[in-house]
Amino acid sequence: MSLNTFGHLFRVTTWGESHGPALGATVDGCPPGITVDGAMIQRWLDLRKPGQNKYTTQRREADAVQILSGVFEGRTTGTPVQLMIENTDQRSRDYGDIAEKFRPGHADITYWQKYGIRDYRGGGRSSARETAARVAAGGLARAALADLLPNLRIKGYMVQMGARAIDRARFDWDQIDQNPFWTPDAQAAAEWAVYLDGLRKSGSSVGAIIEVVARSVPAGLGAPVYAKLDTDLAAAMMSINAVKGVEIGDGMQAALLTGEANADEIRMGPQGPVFSSNHAGGILGGISTGQDVVVRFAVKPTSSILTPRKTITRAGDETEIVTKGRHDPCVGIRAVPVGEAMMACVLLDHLMLHRAQVAEGPAGKIG
Amino acid sequence: MSLNTFGHLFRVTTWGESHGPALGATVDGCPPGITVDGAMIQRWLDLRKPGQNKYTTQRREADAVQILSGVFEGRTTGTPVQLMIENTDQRSRDYGDIAEKFRPGHADITYWQKYGIRDYRGGGRSSARETAARVAAGGLARAALADLLPNLRIKGYMVQMGARAIDRARFDWDQIDQNPFWTPDAQAAAEWAVYLDGLRKSGSSVGAIIEVVARSVPAGLGAPVYAKLDTDLAAAMMSINAVKGVEIGDGMQAALLTGEANADEIRMGPQGPVFSSNHAGGILGGISTGQDVVVRFAVKPTSSILTPRKTITRAGDETEIVTKGRHDPCVGIRAVPVGEAMMACVLLDHLMLHRAQVAEGPAGKIG
Amino acid sequence: MSLNTFGHLFRVTTWGESHGPALGATVDGCPPGITVDGAMIQRWLDLRKPGQNKYTTQRREADAVQILSGVFEGRTTGTPVQLMIENTDQRSRDYGDIAEKFRPGHADITYWQKYGIRDYRGGGRSSARETAARVAAGGLARAALADLLPNLRIKGYMVQMGARAIDRARFDWDQIDQNPFWTPDAQAAAEWAVYLDGLRKSGSSVGAIIEVVARSVPAGLGAPVYAKLDTDLAAAMMSINAVKGVEIGDGMQAALLTGEANADEIRMGPQGPVFSSNHAGGILGGISTGQDVVVRFAVKPTSSILTPRKTITRAGDETEIVTKGRHDPCVGIRAVPVGEAMMACVLLDHLMLHRAQVAEGPAGKIG
Amino acid sequence: MSLNTFGHLFRVTTWGESHGPALGATVDGCPPGITVDGAMIQRWLDLRKPGQNKYTTQRREADAVQILSGVFEGRTTGTPVQLMIENTDQRSRDYGDIAEKFRPGHADITYWQKYGIRDYRGGGRSSARETAARVAAGGLARAALADLLPNLRIKGYMVQMGARAIDRARFDWDQIDQNPFWTPDAQAAAEWAVYLDGLRKSGSSVGAIIEVVARSVPAGLGAPVYAKLDTDLAAAMMSINAVKGVEIGDGMQAALLTGEANADEIRMGPQGPVFSSNHAGGILGGISTGQDVVVRFAVKPTSSILTPRKTITRAGDETEIVTKGRHDPCVGIRAVPVGEAMMACVLLDHLMLHRAQVAEGPAGKIG
Repeated sequence: MSLNTFGHLFRVTTWGESHGPALGATVDGCPPGITVDGAMIQRWLDLRKPGQNKYTTQRREADAVQILSGVFEGRTTGTPVQLMIENTDQRSRDYGDIAEKFRPGHADITYWQKYGIRDYRGGGRSSARETAARVAAGGLARAALADLLPNLRIKGYMVQMGARAIDRARFDWDQIDQNPFWTPDAQAAAEWAVYLDGLRKSGSSVGAIIEVVARSVPAGLGAPVYAKLDTDLAAAMMSINAVKGVEIGDGMQAALLTGEANADEIRMGPQGPVFSSNHAGGILGGISTGQDVVVRFAVKPTSSILTPRKTITRAGDETEIVTKGRHDPCVGIRAVPVGEAMMACVLLDHLMLHRAQVAEGPAGKIG
Repeated sequence: MSLNTFGHLFRVTTWGESHGPALGATVDGCPPGITVDGAMIQRWLDLRKPGQNKYTTQRREADAVQILSGVFEGRTTGTPVQLMIENTDQRSRDYGDIAEKFRPGHADITYWQKYGIRDYRGGGRSSARETAARVAAGGLARAALADLLPNLRIKGYMVQMGARAIDRARFDWDQIDQNPFWTPDAQAAAEWAVYLDGLRKSGSSVGAIIEVVARSVPAGLGAPVYAKLDTDLAAAMMSINAVKGVEIGDGMQAALLTGEANADEIRMGPQGPVFSSNHAGGILGGISTGQDVVVRFAVKPTSSILTPRKTITRAGDETEIVTKGRHDPCVGIRAVPVGEAMMACVLLDHLMLHRAQVAEGPAGKIG
Repeated sequence: MSLNTFGHLFRVTTWGESHGPALGATVDGCPPGITVDGAMIQRWLDLRKPGQNKYTTQRREADAVQILSGVFEGRTTGTPVQLMIENTDQRSRDYGDIAEKFRPGHADITYWQKYGIRDYRGGGRSSARETAARVAAGGLARAALADLLPNLRIKGYMVQMGARAIDRARFDWDQIDQNPFWTPDAQAAAEWAVYLDGLRKSGSSVGAIIEVVARSVPAGLGAPVYAKLDTDLAAAMMSINAVKGVEIGDGMQAALLTGEANADEIRMGPQGPVFSSNHAGGILGGISTGQDVVVRFAVKPTSSILTPRKTITRAGDETEIVTKGRHDPCVGIRAVPVGEAMMACVLLDHLMLHRAQVAEGPAGKIG
Repeated sequence: MSLNTFGHLFRVTTWGESHGPALGATVDGCPPGITVDGAMIQRWLDLRKPGQNKYTTQRREADAVQILSGVFEGRTTGTPVQLMIENTDQRSRDYGDIAEKFRPGHADITYWQKYGIRDYRGGGRSSARETAARVAAGGLARAALADLLPNLRIKGYMVQMGARAIDRARFDWDQIDQNPFWTPDAQAAAEWAVYLDGLRKSGSSVGAIIEVVARSVPAGLGAPVYAKLDTDLAAAMMSINAVKGVEIGDGMQAALLTGEANADEIRMGPQGPVFSSNHAGGILGGISTGQDVVVRFAVKPTSSILTPRKTITRAGDETEIVTKGRHDPCVGIRAVPVGEAMMACVLLDHLMLHRAQVAEGPAGKIG
């Protein structure tokens, strides 16, 4: 992992700014012979793209991906896959004020301090547009996983908006794709719609919690000590813009448990071990157990709001700032497909690492 | 980051099992000319070592570190530093039962499934003993930081044991080193002592939350997108045994905030920008702001408990297990110096990355 | 270094095939604030581009580079720089025969065997066109070096074509840019012109030796043991298509020397150590001495020739092949700017590594 | 590859100085379940160790390897393997003069300039003793290869000492282990013995060329563009102390060939493609062809000689130096097992890389 690159073997380097000519992902190390085309990747980008409903930024971007290399006659060749997305609706006039003032809660000030130069048009590299490139790379990872682990399912959804959490008793997988918040709780979706509409109209914003689950992950993915599956998932999710916390399984709540409560007891099922519970989130000692891999992350609210906030200019003068651009009242919504993409990339990467060191499939048999 | 290695430039590879002859850390990339000796590193190991009071495992280990290379006449040479700790109190007879049965909530089963072979004497590589090597490496990182960032202070402490959180109103830095739990709340320490004594006697265990703060971190450390300072901190903390959640600043609670509440407003102070609050935990866009860097992580309870739990054997037979070895009723206690060590390693690594790409100190001036 | 990526901190990932829509280099880690524009990079691409004279392939490519990211208002921002070159003259009809037959001495057969799929249009990823991306990245590295090491000079030239070596007594720096072979020996240039014209007309090809010198490299760049400056230069040059040997200083001839002859004796000059000779090629123990860094590499002849060669088809049938496409009678010519580009990338990378670990400039003083 | 680490997945980090307490190799990523013990590794160390005959340094080192981790009940566990060798015959009194004076042709001056500190006792990290750690790691790699590629054979031998080359017509595999120079030419061995004895008595030294061949390497190992098999072999060999040139197949002589001569023609044999010749050294486009992989490297003469050479002191005073320690008249001899070890490490690493990306064995079938 080095600056803008993620992954050990399935290596994704994202590039591009929110208001430059294009952005994309250079993906190196993809297995050869994987069936993939633009439409298979576009499908995921379409889920993330802005302007789809009134709850996301009104910036109009087609987010149309072009495969510039690494695919020949519909299959990956094993060489780098370049996935490029041209920016078409930059409207950089919206961002004039930001050139001199730092938005509180935004990376404006740190980019300036670090580099002494900053592409102030919409956040440059720190913009949420960067995540489009991740979703594209995740689409490629999914294509490879479809081939290598056909039973694997990855699904992300929102479990909390602001202080409003879903009721797990109403959890319904089929609801997730039926509402603009990708939430499994239909009643929460209805309530959030009202709440978010109010926030949107007042030019405010709010945070959210996203959960991503991977089902049918084979046992044995991961490695001690610094390439643990959970280590890499934590890094992957924390690297997404605005994420401030990451949890595996019970996460921060694991602190509350006793050893008796935390132990996911093991029984023998027809196809191998089965567990009485999944406090561990499918990972023990950094290695997958075969249970659902469960990751959650918190997304802070957008810093671009209509209420004036105190700040300073580059010259050091004290002032206020109001951000008038087109923004998301709850960026957490669009983080759902991003979290899924990161899960796909991490799982493929670890599948390849496991193949490299051990072989196809787990080495140890039980029973 | 590759399997057992951590860091981009200050690269720490830990090695060794809990019941082998020795364990240690191979540290490559340390700046030359750093004043260091065994005692400077031993100091930190002594904080983590087991058997110091009734609240930690009674295994007796001196955890005496030997510097085998990379230091000449009291200063680092810029070549790899080998830090070795011999195991002296293995008592592997304690672990006979684990050879055949998998402890629920422990890595026994995943190591076996992944590798098809497992050093069952005390957890082997998945044992908390591995963290001794991290503390040793962190001691070297601290020596380098003392030279490169003399004002930097790193401090870890426990903020929650089980369901019992500290009262932030009673936060007292001077208390931290005065109690066996490294907690800044003297009253909590007293209550936890009673609570943990009860757990210890009943052979149970409980989780905890640790917070680590770094003060006087210069603005500008970190990098987009996958080498963000918070990305690497999340990976570093999640890689510690038993950690299930990591938070930066407000962490998971950031989801509850509105944009107005989340914005750490900026004013101009005599030495540069000052912030009205620190929801961000000292990091914006993956780059340090100059505020305190604040990380929290949750440690699950030890799986080694005296209450029988249902499990299976390697042969697939259903059975129960009781772990009679010497264990920690709250491993979170000993995770405090480990968290500090990881913070030190990450900060030094990012200081070096920043020097490489930008130069000494931040490039952008304000005012 | 991982598959298609080169460099520790100045990381270059090249992507693209000879007959796809585009190719390029994703450059991560470039220092911020470097003055650069398309013309500064284009200048070096123009030296490498095909079709410039009758001695190189008649494929017509503008090799026009576009900077898609990482540069704002004429300066690098410290974020990834995407350098894209569109392919404009693919003419893939020339390559029909290669789809089924393997060219002896070419990567056709190994790509097929490894991946089970191969972009047979012109060699795909194994084409010399990939080196255009390196030259673009090298142009960016040169821009950074111009800022960081203003006295540094990098110059490549041809010292041997087939069995015809230059006469070192006629070495003239000013000649290098005056002939199509970038050779410092005017007389050799005249003789080679006649020789190569004959080869070209007969559809044959020949190998060459290129030397690249870097002058005013500061002492202290490099590191033991596997990031030696010569280790990385060897890797960089060997990674260029068709290169079969790499030498530092006396290279393979060092084997002939006695210890007395090999010792570059040291005297004290007004600005530090001076050496009586440079058998070492400016590198001792993997670290630069301050003398000229001298690298040489051998380029094998193009395998695409008009004389029929025995080969097999993918189906395993024995056959013959003649390659009728547009090819270089001496690809070594166009390897000169490629070798310079690799030298630039390696030196910048090591300058950054040195800054990271040690600081600006060498740490040890003499005198 | 980062400073003292080598390899993508089979990662070897060597550590230790010639006159410190110990040196070793930390090997991460080794496949689990490999049968190995100390004796299997010691066997290779015994070939390299000094003092075995009058042609190598008289330093007496047992070079006894200890396996400190990663092996349990005679098999690798998949966790880091620590291979430690204690130094027993340091005799640092021999090296007093070097503390102040720089040996011409040695790394004394560059280490000092780079780091500002130097372990002057025998070269510290730049000593040939570092190669013992590589041989130990290579022994582990060989154990893994014995399991994964049972037909693979790796053999190194000396083909030139000073100006005296072997006669390839007298090449006899069985001779290699019969003489102290590991040369396949018995007549050359006899002549070299006389020649080297003279050099030794006069306190001089001479260079050598070593060739390493790997037989039965499967087709398909390697990758474009910067993880080419030849790129990594070039780096591996150039990283060995005193190596100044590396060749694959015809190496520098490839420059002399025409395309017709260079083409290794292909026919169909009973088990797949067969080649009429092996100018390519078993590698095309960076990927193995299935032919013998052939690497050659030149080792310069030891700089430690009895003839006085001009040099300077750290204070900048001009002086002369004579090195009286125990040294090798032809270090190339002991480089033979080192070259073999590097070949083993690179091949295992690439086998694992191939498994990760593609699968077991080549993906493309012929016939």
